[in-house]
Amino acid sequence: MSTLKIVDGGVCSAKGFRAAGVGAAIKYQGRKDVALIVADEPCAAAAVFTTNKVAASPVLYDREAVKSGCVQAILANSGCANACTGEPGFKDAELSALATAGELAIKPENVLVASTGVIGRRLPVDRLLSGMKAAAKSLGRTADHGLSVAQAVMTTDTRPKQACATVSIGGKKVTVGGCSKGSGMIEPNMATMLGFITTDAAITPAMLRRALKLAVAKSFNRLVVDGDESTNDSLFILASGKAGNQPIVRGGDDFELFRSALEAVCVSLVRQMAKDGEGATKFVTVTVRGARSEADAARAARAVAKSPLAKTSWFGRDPNWGRVLAAVGYSGADVADLKAEVFYDGEWAFRRGEVADEKQLAKLAKVLDKDEFEVVVDLHLGRGESSIYTCDLSLDYVHINADYTT
Amino acid sequence: MSTLKIVDGGVCSAKGFRAAGVGAAIKYQGRKDVALIVADEPCAAAAVFTTNKVAASPVLYDREAVKSGCVQAILANSGCANACTGEPGFKDAELSALATAGELAIKPENVLVASTGVIGRRLPVDRLLSGMKAAAKSLGRTADHGLSVAQAVMTTDTRPKQACATVSIGGKKVTVGGCSKGSGMIEPNMATMLGFITTDAAITPAMLRRALKLAVAKSFNRLVVDGDESTNDSLFILASGKAGNQPIVRGGDDFELFRSALEAVCVSLVRQMAKDGEGATKFVTVTVRGARSEADAARAARAVAKSPLAKTSWFGRDPNWGRVLAAVGYSGADVADLKAEVFYDGEWAFRRGEVADEKQLAKLAKVLDKDEFEVVVDLHLGRGESSIYTCDLSLDYVHINADYTT
Repeated sequence: MSTLKIVDGGVCSAKGFRAAGVGAAIKYQGRKDVALIVADEPCAAAAVFTTNKVAASPVLYDREAVKSGCVQAILANSGCANACTGEPGFKDAELSALATAGELAIKPENVLVASTGVIGRRLPVDRLLSGMKAAAKSLGRTADHGLSVAQAVMTTDTRPKQACATVSIGGKKVTVGGCSKGSGMIEPNMATMLGFITTDAAITPAMLRRALKLAVAKSFNRLVVDGDESTNDSLFILASGKAGNQPIVRGGDDFELFRSALEAVCVSLVRQMAKDGEGATKFVTVTVRGARSEADAARAARAVAKSPLAKTSWFGRDPNWGRVLAAVGYSGADVADLKAEVFYDGEWAFRRGEVADEKQLAKLAKVLDKDEFEVVVDLHLGRGESSIYTCDLSLDYVHINADYTT
Repeated sequence: MSTLKIVDGGVCSAKGFRAAGVGAAIKYQGRKDVALIVADEPCAAAAVFTTNKVAASPVLYDREAVKSGCVQAILANSGCANACTGEPGFKDAELSALATAGELAIKPENVLVASTGVIGRRLPVDRLLSGMKAAAKSLGRTADHGLSVAQAVMTTDTRPKQACATVSIGGKKVTVGGCSKGSGMIEPNMATMLGFITTDAAITPAMLRRALKLAVAKSFNRLVVDGDESTNDSLFILASGKAGNQPIVRGGDDFELFRSALEAVCVSLVRQMAKDGEGATKFVTVTVRGARSEADAARAARAVAKSPLAKTSWFGRDPNWGRVLAAVGYSGADVADLKAEVFYDGEWAFRRGEVADEKQLAKLAKVLDKDEFEVVVDLHLGRGESSIYTCDLSLDYVHINADYTT
């Protein structure tokens, strides 16, 4: 009964939440760009934010607001990042939170805000607040309401990203569901630009923070698209307590069950983001094992996942293990190239000085043709292992980012 | 009379050197791919190599051989990197050096080798040595002989890269000339894949090493193309002493004159490499000033130069200062975004919270249309300043690297 189940769902799947996404012409006409998530009552809350020293106004605002561990609503918009906008931009964020509280008749300090889009432009506050009011009027609990939030926060994303998991804790069914956006500007130390997760678990803010931190380490912090880290990256979780489980106040079995469900949701969102990396044609998991330490393995895997040369070779369907090993070589990790092996989905390309022959290359060609594969580097130096989720670097990545306008 | 002059020239410009580049079908038919540089007598020598822990066999061989500070010849090839080839690959490098010494009737320990090309393939030693013998027969001192070396080491380079400078030291004309190859896999801590510099200065090996290290810090280590660092990067300098200057044995005016000429040659080569970065359409100098420290400025400039998002914005002719500031923000350097200013060739795009209006954007559009411009970030936090040479990230970068075969 405690079995973890991956199910369809999003921010409206857990009990106690309503949501809506509407169009407010923040940047473009004719698309959803304002989202509102509202809990029936104040919730336990936690969040993680970008470590970029140039942090957007909503991040600066939320960092303070979430310290209470109590949140009831989040207003989000796409189309404008409200970053590098100074004191006026901070006031815009604050005003948006206050107006949302007024509209919903809840406490202003329990409202968070999130923005994504172009840097350096002031928020069109009038349009944002019109959108917020329209969203407040159309709040609901259906799957479509959840989906509309996932759609409203998209920028260069080609599809909405949602995930949901259920688990039984002390005989009570607990649901964790959410959505995220972000297909470029994604890198560890805050991979999503924006992520919203809701749960009906009963859990203290402190334990929620702990669970979120652990889940992020296994998911969002393992995602590399282009190595750039945004000014706006934020991941939120709200817990309504409506599942009726015995409140989780410390580590133990209940906490582990909850943590595993949250991790499953985060990993699913991250995989969807890597697959939707700007211009991505391939989803690639880079695993380094046999490293001198786990830190070495993580360094090496990240260097491979960030290497433009490795990424273009995947796009070109070329089992170019030389570029992979070269990236490991400059990562700072210990490596003895003649002990190392490189595999693509279990097919070896290089093993301890031996290079794939024609027959082996034919097998590798089949792997590289796939939309999804794993590159494994075994360093044979120790027991350190780490994986990174990433994608290839394609012509469309350049198209998208050369054409996206300031 | 001591005035530094930039002149046309290459590895045959300084007195005491002969060279040749020939075709030996190392990878392709019908192009030069083997180069030989030979000094009339054993020379003072110095070199810097890749810091990649996966270092190619010629690098492993040369690191030992150059320790004597005495070199008379260098054999180089393109088409095959002789990297990740283990003990057999090392023997191939050794054998190539021995055979070259035999052909030239010089000491084997005074011969270095250099390779560039595909990783993981064994050197075609027979063809390489045939090429070496053909080159030995066609050695000469003309500008064309120098050019043929620059051509023979090209891989994805679209043009040969040579530079030369003269300076008067104690009334004697001293010449420093060289060539380099490398348009991808270029990054600080050894930017060139292969560089060869000759000089007729009289200078001790120790002072030559010191001059090379200083010049590299101001040139090759300030170049970023894609952030990848090769297994084969090597830069060599040989000094024949034929200029007849009083030998340079310590720091002082003579050393400074020599160092300035060497730096001028290195900077010229690096600028040519950045302009010829794989697929590059724009040569961009990124300067960060007003940083808390020089180290902060260097970190920030490098992060901007490596950011795929900033690089694609240059390709797209977009004065996207937001991506520039975001890269500074995650570089680790101290930044207060509302104190910062971002300029493109002196035209401001962002200054202390103020964003370019339509009129200013029109000026910026003219800068971004140019083939060459400087991006300046002034952090207004201190006096640290640093510059990096780089290029944009274009569609052709992806074409070239997706199609380049293993």
